[in-house]
Amino acid sequence: MLYPLDLFGTCIFAVTGAFLGVQKKLDIFGVLVVGFVTAVGGGTVRDVLLGHSPVFWLKDFNYFIAVICGVLAALILGRRVLRIKLFLSLSDAVGLGVFTIIGIKKALDADLLPVFCVMMGVTTSVAGGMIRDILCTESPMVLSREIYATACIAGGFAYFIMRFFSLADNAAVISSILIIIIIRIISIKMNLSLPKRKNA
Amino acid sequence: MLYPLDLFGTCIFAVTGAFLGVQKKLDIFGVLVVGFVTAVGGGTVRDVLLGHSPVFWLKDFNYFIAVICGVLAALILGRRVLRIKLFLSLSDAVGLGVFTIIGIKKALDADLLPVFCVMMGVTTSVAGGMIRDILCTESPMVLSREIYATACIAGGFAYFIMRFFSLADNAAVISSILIIIIIRIISIKMNLSLPKRKNA
Amino acid sequence: MLYPLDLFGTCIFAVTGAFLGVQKKLDIFGVLVVGFVTAVGGGTVRDVLLGHSPVFWLKDFNYFIAVICGVLAALILGRRVLRIKLFLSLSDAVGLGVFTIIGIKKALDADLLPVFCVMMGVTTSVAGGMIRDILCTESPMVLSREIYATACIAGGFAYFIMRFFSLADNAAVISSILIIIIIRIISIKMNLSLPKRKNA
Repeated sequence: MLYPLDLFGTCIFAVTGAFLGVQKKLDIFGVLVVGFVTAVGGGTVRDVLLGHSPVFWLKDFNYFIAVICGVLAALILGRRVLRIKLFLSLSDAVGLGVFTIIGIKKALDADLLPVFCVMMGVTTSVAGGMIRDILCTESPMVLSREIYATACIAGGFAYFIMRFFSLADNAAVISSILIIIIIRIISIKMNLSLPKRKNA
Repeated sequence: MLYPLDLFGTCIFAVTGAFLGVQKKLDIFGVLVVGFVTAVGGGTVRDVLLGHSPVFWLKDFNYFIAVICGVLAALILGRRVLRIKLFLSLSDAVGLGVFTIIGIKKALDADLLPVFCVMMGVTTSVAGGMIRDILCTESPMVLSREIYATACIAGGFAYFIMRFFSLADNAAVISSILIIIIIRIISIKMNLSLPKRKNA
Repeated sequence: MLYPLDLFGTCIFAVTGAFLGVQKKLDIFGVLVVGFVTAVGGGTVRDVLLGHSPVFWLKDFNYFIAVICGVLAALILGRRVLRIKLFLSLSDAVGLGVFTIIGIKKALDADLLPVFCVMMGVTTSVAGGMIRDILCTESPMVLSREIYATACIAGGFAYFIMRFFSLADNAAVISSILIIIIIRIISIKMNLSLPKRKNA
């Protein structure tokens, strides 16, 4: 059930990464690289930290195809990609939720503590975007703006709370993903962001 | 014996990382991430290069607690952290020494040549700070200023020289850590730095 | 046959990396680090993605020596390194070809699909330079300028086409490396670069 959503999220993440690459005036190879690392970078960091090798996308050609589709979409659409901004935001939220749960599942398979499972889930969701920003010499957006990683953290802990109360795994997975999507969309709508320390 | 000092160094590195995050106006999540990678990033790079998986902090909850303590201290103190600058510099030097020796020990367990053991020790000490600077879009401090990595290199080679002369391992470990601390403190006091090539 | 060329390419990559470090006014340690990651960074990323551990240069002291020679050459020559710019460009192209084929061979040993083998070849060739640019807070050159990665991609696919037509492996290897070198030199001579999306 998660697999098609995972590929969909991969494609959407590739679109947003490739679009930043186009804005940064990278050439076609650069746009492809940035789209690629945005889409699979988070899962790659997770796999490397867990010691899963080779990393997941080297074992399944479909991720590569999903990335290529996303990069082509960004290249063909160019600035017009902004016209589907609402669709992209919603899809990105779906990807965020799915990536988080997949990261948690892989960490559970490695017998990690719940707090580290949530951390691996968040890593799967946000590390790709961090590498994207660094490659584009931008300050990593996720560290300073908006409720983004926070949505993943909330959804991740919700998943473990539901497991603790013996909810069926399928129900817990779906609920957690929905929690992440809803928090993310509310935070976009209301322009929410995490507090910062003042007078620093 | 090294373990409590290792946790102490982890906490101090997290303080300095989190404080840079606060200065860079990151949100609470960003400050946590930067504190975390500063504290455990060096050991993580070492573990990945050596092929130790999962990485060390996923197997021991205490590192996580040490990081959280350091990040909270930085968030609560804010600018006032500068009032304990001398304490932080001294503690950072202790962390530097301990991290270097731990990196060397892990590399010895992997049967590496002494020069690579020293390199893994230096990596454990300085790679976290390099990732911190890159995440904060700063030029990595360790590459251009002060005697920092050099202290680790000197202490690392001193350790192998003492081993060569059959000094008891405990004595060699303590001496090497002290050498690193002393070089580091002298270089801070005298504002020393490595030479650069002129007219480049 | 590839091994001496591999060490030669490692040395040349270290020269170019170290020279950028000198220009960026890094200290001697910084120049060494940047030279090192430029030379072995690509193969390191490849080994980590494939799960080869420890990474290749920890198992063979000759890579370390090659890097040291390159870094020393850059430090001694300084700006005069530009007088051998043509030699460096040609040697860099040789390194590019050899690194690509070595990456492909290692990926073939891991039973990857041809497209991923080419990707690992390109990663071996260009990831080191990307890390170099990020450490020097430069925008990664390979993502936006010149025919660089493209030469590796073309040579990589040429290798698989020749294998498909049952060419002897040695002949295919040599031809692919020559293709990469020739494309690279022509692109330097004619100042070619990949197209970018306009009006983005």
